Formats: sequence, structure tokens, C-alpha cells
Amino acid sequence: MDTTYVHGYAAPEARRLGDQADTLAGLLHAGTAFPAGSRVLEVGCGVGAQTVHLAARSPGARLTAVDVSEASLKEAAARVTGVDFRHADLFDLDGEYDHLFVCFVLEHLPEPEKALAHLKTLLRPGGTITVIEGDHGSAFFHPRSEPAQAAIDCLVRLQADAGGDALIGRRLYPLLAGAGFADVVVEPRTVYADASRPALVTGFTRDTFTAMVEGVGETAVARGLATAGSWARGVADLHRTETFHYTFFKATGRTS
Amino acid sequence: MDTTYVHGYAAPEARRLGDQADTLAGLLHAGTAFPAGSRVLEVGCGVGAQTVHLAARSPGARLTAVDVSEASLKEAAARVTGVDFRHADLFDLDGEYDHLFVCFVLEHLPEPEKALAHLKTLLRPGGTITVIEGDHGSAFFHPRSEPAQAAIDCLVRLQADAGGDALIGRRLYPLLAGAGFADVVVEPRTVYADASRPALVTGFTRDTFTAMVEGVGETAVARGLATAGSWARGVADLHRTETFHYTFFKATGRTS
Repeated sequence: MDTTYVHGYAAPEARRLGDQADTLAGLLHAGTAFPAGSRVLEVGCGVGAQTVHLAARSPGARLTAVDVSEASLKEAAARVTGVDFRHADLFDLDGEYDHLFVCFVLEHLPEPEKALAHLKTLLRPGGTITVIEGDHGSAFFHPRSEPAQAAIDCLVRLQADAGGDALIGRRLYPLLAGAGFADVVVEPRTVYADASRPALVTGFTRDTFTAMVEGVGETAVARGLATAGSWARGVADLHRTETFHYTFFKATGRTS
Repeated sequence: MDTTYVHGYAAPEARRLGDQADTLAGLLHAGTAFPAGSRVLEVGCGVGAQTVHLAARSPGARLTAVDVSEASLKEAAARVTGVDFRHADLFDLDGEYDHLFVCFVLEHLPEPEKALAHLKTLLRPGGTITVIEGDHGSAFFHPRSEPAQAAIDCLVRLQADAGGDALIGRRLYPLLAGAGFADVVVEPRTVYADASRPALVTGFTRDTFTAMVEGVGETAVARGLATAGSWARGVADLHRTETFHYTFFKATGRTS
């Protein structure tokens, strides 16, 4: 397994993920609010990009957020107050919670099935889990471009080489159902940007998705997955897109 | 240009499109209701699969529906009452209308730009156009399957060979804006089916999308685009999908 590239753990990535969360917060967090007093655990909070929205939408909840990166936790703690930040690996977590929130985490794990099985042990009976993931296979755009598509395919390949799955969104239903969660519901949350939505063109197409592609260019070229020229053309074509589509998936389930 | 395959004009297709419309009606027609007395023209009504929903949602509107196929119009007239059905080619249409409705039509046209330019001449100042199209590039599913993906790619190729574009959904914004419509708004309307939504698995994944793929198998094999074996595997894999995603695009614009 290759862990050189794990997006979310590099300096410019921190700002990118912050921007992404702000643009997408409404889309991803709609419908997620936990009652006052409930014990909520965010697993893999990273730099707190989602934590800030969790805390804002569930002001009375008792929020704990964990991550494996001390550096990310430090940034997160500087960003959000009133949250109990802890340094821990997902598989070492214990305790009991009413609700779990897991966003952009399973995509990085070689065995998401095992992660979900362990997370399930942390929930009280009747507790809920919320999982959000993207799926790079949902990305399409106009004008079409082979170099841009090839660059996106490289991202999928790099994440697979690192033990993850950039196409995991489509798997959330079988993953949660397979882990034994009840009442599993998966909803697509689709981002569509064109010239009539300039904030999304900037905030998502350019500063989120295209920035993510640009961010792995050196790695892709160094590994011989792309030439510098083809990568540059792909990125340029993404910058030139007039319409862009991407679907996130939001899944919920509960313990019986 | 090859017109052997134009979906919508074969006998089993008529029933399929009827089923499709019923399953998707809520998704596609939400937000579309025209005022009593307004003059509404449906362009390319086919067998009336959408006309029935248009009429139901705009009971007081004066609805005219046209198609190039006399056989389709006869079916449509048997299905919906209170609609003025007329036999006409899109480019021969004249008169003045308050609203145009154009669903699954542009995908078949070699020059959708010219069609939109002509349709615009039929609208009074301040009139609106509503356009709905799919985009086969939005189809993805779990488990992934190369034969299934190859079969879908064949559909795109066959439609291109017939002068159409099965990937037109992503182009609606530039097409309508380019034709000079004002206030163009395009919304993705996403279908997502898994085991928690059995009616969608049956009504969309199986009876709409997979049935459409199955319907062009003989043509694809006869033209050497696929082998009988690979096509059968692709269709079997589509029947076995656990999750399925597809995005339609609904665009509106107005004349100034």
C-alpha cells in the first residue's frame, strides 16, 4: 500500500478543503442536526472543515472529533471552539455515542467494511451513523476533453494505489447494509455548475475539483501515469469547462 | 446520417417510454405548471408519455402537441384527451405560444442550435421554454462492469451515428444561452436507485435504462460494435447492479 498521496494532509490542501466545505456546506449538511445533549462523534475530522458546520447546526450537542493527524487537529481546534478534539486512530476508538458523523474518510481506507463494523460498536442501540463521500465517476463536463478525463482517471488510480477508493460513493448502500446498519438511506447530493451559478463555478469547479486535480499533477507525472504536457492540457481544459457535474452521496443508518 | 435507430419509434419502445414517464414524472415535471388559458406547445410529443403529465399538471392550459410520426400521434391521442395533436416537423412549426415544452427531442437532432433558434420564433416576448434531456455519461453503478460500460458507450455511439447526442444534458446551458434565451436556469434531476428504493430499481434501472440498452443489442452486434457475448454480459451485469445513478437535466429560459 502506498500512502504518499492522501489528500487532506498537505498544507495547501488544508485551505482547499476549507473552501470546499464552505461552498458545499449547505448541500452536504442539509438534514443533519443532532439534539441538544446528544453525544456526537466525528470520525476523521481533519482540519475541521466539516466540524465547524456540524457545531453550528447542532449547537447543544456534545461534539467529540477525532483524527489521526496531530497537525490537522491543531488546525481544527483553532477553527472551532466547544468541541472535544482527540488524537486517535479509528480502530482504537471506544466509548458510547448517540450519533456518528464520517465525512470523506472511508474513501481513504483499504477496508471500509472493517471500519464500519468497528464504528457500529461505538453506537448505543438506536444510535445513528451519517456517512458522506464523493464519487469521481460522477464527474462530467462540457466541453468534453480526453486529457481532462485522463487526469481524473489518474486521481482514481492514485487513490487506489494508496489503498483507497475514489469511486466509493456508489458503494455506500451495500457498505452500510453489509455492516448491519438498519434503515439505510442513501441520497445523491449533486453539484451542477454553469455560468448562471458563478459562485459554484469558482467555489467548486475551479477551487475544489480542478484544484484537487492540479494538486496531484507532480505525483502523477513522477509515477509515469501522465506526461507533463497531457496533465497541463487536462487541467487547462477543466478550467475551460462551461458546465460541470459531480455527485456526493450522503448515507444514514441506525443500530437496532 | 443514419436514422435506423431512433429510440421512441418502435413498438416495444412505446410501452417502455410510457413506463419511464410514469416512474420519472414526479422528478421531471416538478416545477412545471402553466397558467389556465396559456398557449402551450409540446414539441416532439411522441406517444404522449410526457403529454399526459403536462395536461394533468396544467389543467386549464391550451395544450398543443406536435410530432413527426403519425403513428405516435395516434397513440398519444388515445392516451390523452383535451390536447390539440398536430402532425408537423419542428422546423415547419409556426404560430405564437406562451410556453414551449421540449422533452427528449434535442438529443435526436443533428443541429439542436438551429432547432432552438426556430423554436424561439414561436414564443411571444416574455414566453418561456422548458427543455428536458438525459446524459448517458451520468450513468454509473455498483458493481462496476466493463461490459456494461461498453454497452452504454455503444448507445452513445449509435445515437451519434444517427445524428444525435446522448450526452446532450451537459450542453443545455450553452445551447439555450447561445440561442439567445434569457434567464437560463439548468437543474440536474438525479435518479438514484438501490435496494431501499425497489420501485426505482424496477421502474428505472431495469425497465427504463437496462431495457433501453437491451433494445439496441441486435443493432450494436449487427454493426460490429459489440459481440453477442459481450453485449449479453453487459446487460446481465446491469441487471445485477445494486446501485444505479443517472442525471437528467431540466432547463428553462425565456424570450426578452
